[in-house]
Amino acid sequence: MVAKATSGGAGTQEGVHAIGRRRFLQYTTTAMGAASLAGLTPTAGAGTIIGARRSAQTSGILKRVAADPTHIPPPITRRRPAVVPVVLEAREIIAEIEPGVLFRFMTYNGQVPGPFIRVREGDTIDLTFRNPKTNTEAHNVDFHAAMGPGGGALATWTEPGEEARLRFRATYPGAFIYHCAVSNMDMHISSGMFGMILVEPKAGLPRVDYELYLGQNEIYTDKPAGLPGQHHFAIGAMVREQPTYVVINGAAHGLTAQRYGAMQVRTGSTARIYFVVGGPNLSCSFHAIGNVWRELWPEGAMANKPLHFVQTYPVPPGSPTVATLHFPVAADIKLVDHALTRVVHQGCLAVIHAEGRGNPELFQARGKRPL
Amino acid sequence: MVAKATSGGAGTQEGVHAIGRRRFLQYTTTAMGAASLAGLTPTAGAGTIIGARRSAQTSGILKRVAADPTHIPPPITRRRPAVVPVVLEAREIIAEIEPGVLFRFMTYNGQVPGPFIRVREGDTIDLTFRNPKTNTEAHNVDFHAAMGPGGGALATWTEPGEEARLRFRATYPGAFIYHCAVSNMDMHISSGMFGMILVEPKAGLPRVDYELYLGQNEIYTDKPAGLPGQHHFAIGAMVREQPTYVVINGAAHGLTAQRYGAMQVRTGSTARIYFVVGGPNLSCSFHAIGNVWRELWPEGAMANKPLHFVQTYPVPPGSPTVATLHFPVAADIKLVDHALTRVVHQGCLAVIHAEGRGNPELFQARGKRPL
Amino acid sequence: MVAKATSGGAGTQEGVHAIGRRRFLQYTTTAMGAASLAGLTPTAGAGTIIGARRSAQTSGILKRVAADPTHIPPPITRRRPAVVPVVLEAREIIAEIEPGVLFRFMTYNGQVPGPFIRVREGDTIDLTFRNPKTNTEAHNVDFHAAMGPGGGALATWTEPGEEARLRFRATYPGAFIYHCAVSNMDMHISSGMFGMILVEPKAGLPRVDYELYLGQNEIYTDKPAGLPGQHHFAIGAMVREQPTYVVINGAAHGLTAQRYGAMQVRTGSTARIYFVVGGPNLSCSFHAIGNVWRELWPEGAMANKPLHFVQTYPVPPGSPTVATLHFPVAADIKLVDHALTRVVHQGCLAVIHAEGRGNPELFQARGKRPL
Repeated sequence: MVAKATSGGAGTQEGVHAIGRRRFLQYTTTAMGAASLAGLTPTAGAGTIIGARRSAQTSGILKRVAADPTHIPPPITRRRPAVVPVVLEAREIIAEIEPGVLFRFMTYNGQVPGPFIRVREGDTIDLTFRNPKTNTEAHNVDFHAAMGPGGGALATWTEPGEEARLRFRATYPGAFIYHCAVSNMDMHISSGMFGMILVEPKAGLPRVDYELYLGQNEIYTDKPAGLPGQHHFAIGAMVREQPTYVVINGAAHGLTAQRYGAMQVRTGSTARIYFVVGGPNLSCSFHAIGNVWRELWPEGAMANKPLHFVQTYPVPPGSPTVATLHFPVAADIKLVDHALTRVVHQGCLAVIHAEGRGNPELFQARGKRPL
Repeated sequence: MVAKATSGGAGTQEGVHAIGRRRFLQYTTTAMGAASLAGLTPTAGAGTIIGARRSAQTSGILKRVAADPTHIPPPITRRRPAVVPVVLEAREIIAEIEPGVLFRFMTYNGQVPGPFIRVREGDTIDLTFRNPKTNTEAHNVDFHAAMGPGGGALATWTEPGEEARLRFRATYPGAFIYHCAVSNMDMHISSGMFGMILVEPKAGLPRVDYELYLGQNEIYTDKPAGLPGQHHFAIGAMVREQPTYVVINGAAHGLTAQRYGAMQVRTGSTARIYFVVGGPNLSCSFHAIGNVWRELWPEGAMANKPLHFVQTYPVPPGSPTVATLHFPVAADIKLVDHALTRVVHQGCLAVIHAEGRGNPELFQARGKRPL
Repeated sequence: MVAKATSGGAGTQEGVHAIGRRRFLQYTTTAMGAASLAGLTPTAGAGTIIGARRSAQTSGILKRVAADPTHIPPPITRRRPAVVPVVLEAREIIAEIEPGVLFRFMTYNGQVPGPFIRVREGDTIDLTFRNPKTNTEAHNVDFHAAMGPGGGALATWTEPGEEARLRFRATYPGAFIYHCAVSNMDMHISSGMFGMILVEPKAGLPRVDYELYLGQNEIYTDKPAGLPGQHHFAIGAMVREQPTYVVINGAAHGLTAQRYGAMQVRTGSTARIYFVVGGPNLSCSFHAIGNVWRELWPEGAMANKPLHFVQTYPVPPGSPTVATLHFPVAADIKLVDHALTRVVHQGCLAVIHAEGRGNPELFQARGKRPL
């Protein structure tokens, strides 16, 4: 169920998502009308809100920003360097953090994390970056895979209504974050402007059954978590590093059966997880409940050997990690930041549903009884 | 002074603790009745202290939750897999964080961290988990060493008055945390519900002179650190990740000469430290003042080679680390979270007293004089 | 441009700083008289302020505490152990965190981080530690490179007007922090009392073109960042781990063209960065914007092999890291804590200016245009 894509270019990826996709489509996009939206908009009136409302009326849905975790270009099979076209577009979008809680996200191509870009060590990325007139702020891109001024931040710094071009060569392998890096970059990243570029080593990567793409960021708002309505960005909370939400793929409990659907795998299979922490500030103590990272590349630095059988790994803000899971037992594997208050109170949870047979040799519930 | 135990099963371990034990036995365990507990209630003001005092008169002391760090089953010598029975019991206990400061701990078997469980790669753990009627809340166990739903959380989820059974096989080596994982698991872990299971590699571990077991967690209460009386759990402080106390083995400055006694070793010896961070939220920058981690297994992942001569290692919440110390010089080695405000203001300190000769070739104080 | 020094002893190092030095000298030390200082001192009157004012009158400058990052003793060429004399002196100094914001720093030898001490594995450090009468507090030194009580903290604990002597042998290689460790050590480290001792492996280190020395700490004050005047230490903010400033070399945006000057290197060269996190509490997610850590020794533990091509590495408080950068493209490389709010709002930024030719094969801005 690795996403098949027409090219390695991020802007043009359209995938076929076998198992994962089906469950995802359980997500019936909410039909929220202007009225209910108005009721959710305490300070109301702002043009952006009205814009969103209008869009909701048109499309029948409140836009989802959660990236489809199976939407990944396929492994690279060519053995020679290429020039890979990538199109990223900054999009400011009102969407839900959790049902009823609206927030102005800033995104690359309307999704959080931004498109998964896949190249090979030695490839040249030919980036077109667009900041449409409909936006209200300057945006840009800083690639950790690039050697050059600001990782591209200056070359791509655009006002609404501008487009910029940048070329850079990916000279070292690994998984790297890209993110917005304008003056108030912490706010832009917190609002969703980060994604991953995978630079495959020249020798390629081991074959796996699934590849999944996830990103964590924390959102600082002016209201308590769960309070319905429009949440506005709270800079003071960001300076205190006390977020309202800590989310995976931009949504509180987004990748669970209760919301957009869990990720789906079969028992006996292996998945490679590409996980990027946008932050802007918090480290993620990355853990898979009911499983273990079979291989894990610290800091996504794939020039190095992976660690084996790691339970919880600290992923700093501004860094990905790459890790594999094997699924010997049917289970809902819960991916969390093991700073567990972020799970219990701030929405940080994504689920991989491993469907198949149990494995009583490995794991067997043996019942409960009164004492 | 490795604890000798009758079996690898946690519930039945009784150890002989050479040097460390003697100091520890200064502490006599308490029998607190319902009456004195009632007297320890929050609004009682000065009465709480009197309650504590009264109980002290009756039993000698208020119940200690600090696990004896030398209480570890012996290294495993058998070369074949076994089924290892383990009994864990949830116990809610009012005890002192520091003298005069009472708190309702939640524990496994009355100690923080919970019993050290020791098995060999390939062994099967046969767990009995009990939640006695005297408790007030649901509890369970999530083992990071288990492959299966919730690491066992569902299979062991019990209300007061229930018992559950679970079998799982430990298929990968390393030191792993186990912890409570009910809905408000962050509160339960903060209150003490975490411990360690060591899965020895098939080849065994190098011989050392001492093994010591420590765990760190942070406690969020409704009163300032040090204010005598009953402290209640403060969920808001937990969401802000601003604890009142950061403790080792459940007690502020517990494992020091001023309280339950320091750990004791002889110069020239080597100790292996098993350290588990329950959190629920804070990472520990683990450091031994006046010494260095001679070997350290990042994230407790013993399938990998250790690092050498590490001064300070970040241990994320939901992870152990395993490390060795050598003691060439007589000294009080202070184990701390090098986020030093937690040491100065929040109680995070444990001491290893290395008794023996000085080593002036290595370290020599050469006096002070007026300028 | 490695600093040439007359010896490895920290107290006597005077360097010649080729490129880096030139830019540094752009920094014309501000001639601020008593009048302007008085204007910056809202609560005025404190004896310490008056003392600083007097000193300003005498010397014509407000003292800068930012250590010169090129001020590093040269690599060690001898192949036999030596006794290395080191003189450290505690100095309490009123200086600017950023222009107009005064703070009472505590320093070793008047600089933050303290002098870079360079020895070889097996060397003996012969330390003289002075606490001049002009200070107001007890001070000392805890060396993570020392095996012995408190890393030297007890042997060097001195009141104002005292001097202490200590000898210890550096028996393991790596980069180690030293820091003040009196009772309120967190406050002393936050105020600037930390530095680095490099214990070169016996085989020496690979040749590089530049060596640079940086340290991060966070400062907790009683006023908002940027508010002109005298900021006083705020213990409550420290317990909450919510600093006012997060700085590199003791100064907000200190090592930038806008203040004391950026560090200077030539394209095509390689630099080794010695980076130490004093804390006292925050980890640094260390990143070089527009570049990548080509080699990085986790926790400064140079007995181990380095990692390669790491983008962001978490350096815990109480730990250094050592890492190399290569500069294939002319650029301002920005060293940051990738917890980016600390960059945007709290001053955490230092710049390496890589001067030379562009490298359009690697990186090419290709223009902007209206959409």
